[in-house]
Amino acid sequence: MRPLSIIALLACNWCGAQTPDDSKPAASNIMGAQFPRIHADLRVTFRVTAPTAQKVLVQPGGADNGLGAGPYEMTRDEKGVWTATTPPAVPGFHYYWLVVDGFAANDPSSETFYGYGKESSGIEVPEKGVDFYDAKDVPHGEIHIAWYHSKVTGLWRRAYVYAPPGYDSARTRYPVLYLHHGSGEDETTWTKQGKANLIMDNLIAEGKAVPMLVVMETAYATRQGATPEASPAGPPRVPDVFEDVVMGDLIPMIDSAYRTIPDREHRAMTGTSRGASQTLQITSKHLDQFAWIGAFSAPPIANFDVKTSLDGVFRDAAAYNKKVRLLWIGAGAMEERMHQGAKAMDEALEAAGIKHVFYESPGTAHEFQTWRRDLREFAPRLFR
Amino acid sequence: MRPLSIIALLACNWCGAQTPDDSKPAASNIMGAQFPRIHADLRVTFRVTAPTAQKVLVQPGGADNGLGAGPYEMTRDEKGVWTATTPPAVPGFHYYWLVVDGFAANDPSSETFYGYGKESSGIEVPEKGVDFYDAKDVPHGEIHIAWYHSKVTGLWRRAYVYAPPGYDSARTRYPVLYLHHGSGEDETTWTKQGKANLIMDNLIAEGKAVPMLVVMETAYATRQGATPEASPAGPPRVPDVFEDVVMGDLIPMIDSAYRTIPDREHRAMTGTSRGASQTLQITSKHLDQFAWIGAFSAPPIANFDVKTSLDGVFRDAAAYNKKVRLLWIGAGAMEERMHQGAKAMDEALEAAGIKHVFYESPGTAHEFQTWRRDLREFAPRLFR
Repeated sequence: MRPLSIIALLACNWCGAQTPDDSKPAASNIMGAQFPRIHADLRVTFRVTAPTAQKVLVQPGGADNGLGAGPYEMTRDEKGVWTATTPPAVPGFHYYWLVVDGFAANDPSSETFYGYGKESSGIEVPEKGVDFYDAKDVPHGEIHIAWYHSKVTGLWRRAYVYAPPGYDSARTRYPVLYLHHGSGEDETTWTKQGKANLIMDNLIAEGKAVPMLVVMETAYATRQGATPEASPAGPPRVPDVFEDVVMGDLIPMIDSAYRTIPDREHRAMTGTSRGASQTLQITSKHLDQFAWIGAFSAPPIANFDVKTSLDGVFRDAAAYNKKVRLLWIGAGAMEERMHQGAKAMDEALEAAGIKHVFYESPGTAHEFQTWRRDLREFAPRLFR
Repeated sequence: MRPLSIIALLACNWCGAQTPDDSKPAASNIMGAQFPRIHADLRVTFRVTAPTAQKVLVQPGGADNGLGAGPYEMTRDEKGVWTATTPPAVPGFHYYWLVVDGFAANDPSSETFYGYGKESSGIEVPEKGVDFYDAKDVPHGEIHIAWYHSKVTGLWRRAYVYAPPGYDSARTRYPVLYLHHGSGEDETTWTKQGKANLIMDNLIAEGKAVPMLVVMETAYATRQGATPEASPAGPPRVPDVFEDVVMGDLIPMIDSAYRTIPDREHRAMTGTSRGASQTLQITSKHLDQFAWIGAFSAPPIANFDVKTSLDGVFRDAAAYNKKVRLLWIGAGAMEERMHQGAKAMDEALEAAGIKHVFYESPGTAHEFQTWRRDLREFAPRLFR
């Protein structure tokens, strides 16, 4: 950084002050940025300076994004400052981009969030009266960024590990929740977008969840030496071997580097979207390793059949019910495909006598507000 | 994330394969991105798809950026893919942006790095034969992300804390290095851009540095309830009270939450650029709290005078030499102002009989390759 071009940026008490129109800078803005702003009725105003651009849009990420489908055309003033205000947004976290003369660019006023397979802009829209994912005056756990070497991939990998308050001084051992992200996201997503650490801090402080470690990894992996194979749809690709990384590299590393209780009764797994599919696949093959299972907004399993799907894990309801302490399926009420899939699975499991919990997040879609609520509901049921 | 729009992104063994032109994707790219690519002679080729744009440039961040001054005009092919290749780059980490029809946008193929007061693109250019900041097969420390509440600002803050290998199991106490970022950067910068954790891992593995905690904070703060004051140059602003946060909030938190040796003989501070100025100011006022002091590329102190500058801390050379175990001043040989300032300070301290070390990083400017080398040279001298 050149000090000659110092930008006066402050972690600032006053720069988020309300203006007469009752709007406030979003919590997802970079330090000191006044836009995007959230209005009292949850309309969002975006603003960007682009004097030489011909056309600028705000593009929400995905069709069921809580900002609406968009795109929203921005209006230029005489100085080249472009502004747009959306209709009232759904509370939660929403990916978005600016489209400047056809080029999808991040909003320079937004922090970036790994999603959609790249660093993306995102906006945090508060939910009135809801503080379960706020940083409150309670004991805070820490996130540990742990490097480890994978024998499966031959590469160094990074896990984010939430250690509950007091972990360092307590010297006791803890159960572990493995918490996977969705497609196009990474190991940073569940804490940065999802605020998993703050949700756990608050649940633990209120005595609603037992203290646990939460492990968040990057759910992509290819085998060392693997070469791409022809694919009927799309470019050549190699099989994803994340399951092998989890079972052969990640869990052994966590059980070695952290004070865990290394048995199935103290090991849970869940994930969002693609991470929910990975969870169902991995846990079904390894019920001897996991007693607590969640699926947050899993893509539907084609032709779901309790007798054959997921390696037939549900075939013997009595055996499954005896072994699995919790099977938990969640979806947002405003999701289309995932909600239908989860509902169909719920009904099929119900009919087959498989004990499970079905949770529907009111008013939210395939986004983090659904998954934050999922975690708030799921975590308290674990390890009891 | 919508699974319907899944992008096949893999932490991938094969997708970084060399092409016949002997170029490789940069390590700073997002997963799977083939561009930017680094050539064997360290030319860098950037590529972006922007079919409807009229003009696209690559803009290095700052005049002494190791990519050269630029901007580099990109050339469009018939499909709207734009390409530019720079002259051979200086090894290290360089901020940059794309300028699309006059709008400074991040490169969608790059990870983002907090610098220049926002999330910026950056490129890692390898240095031949140099691996002191690589992830090697050695024991790795962890980075702990610690939340804490500041009485000074009234806000929650985040510190990144490097815990050396074995910290959790050793149960011993450790010395602490406070390591500040530069202007426009934040608490993530020293590990993400600087690779401070990997540098420390490697130094400790080779027995070159003693195991220590390294604390990296966000070096901006305004007092709770402060209101902006008129400023002769620029917009109204409030005074930065980071010193008060460090002395009143951060050090007490670290000494409470971590197993530190909480005395001046086991406490060091340094920083880059603005962080070097902060270090000199804070340590000069609190020599009873710090025995080891560094300044990596400090902006020149106007009219530096050993009798009066920095609260006259250098006035009594014998007393200073007795108290301070290390005063370390570094600059890149290719920096202009900072190098002149460091050299002037070196000469004045030498003339006044103040013991110190002056380090010059060959061939590098006001960038992280200078500061990585600074840390490699500075850390081994601490706490011995």
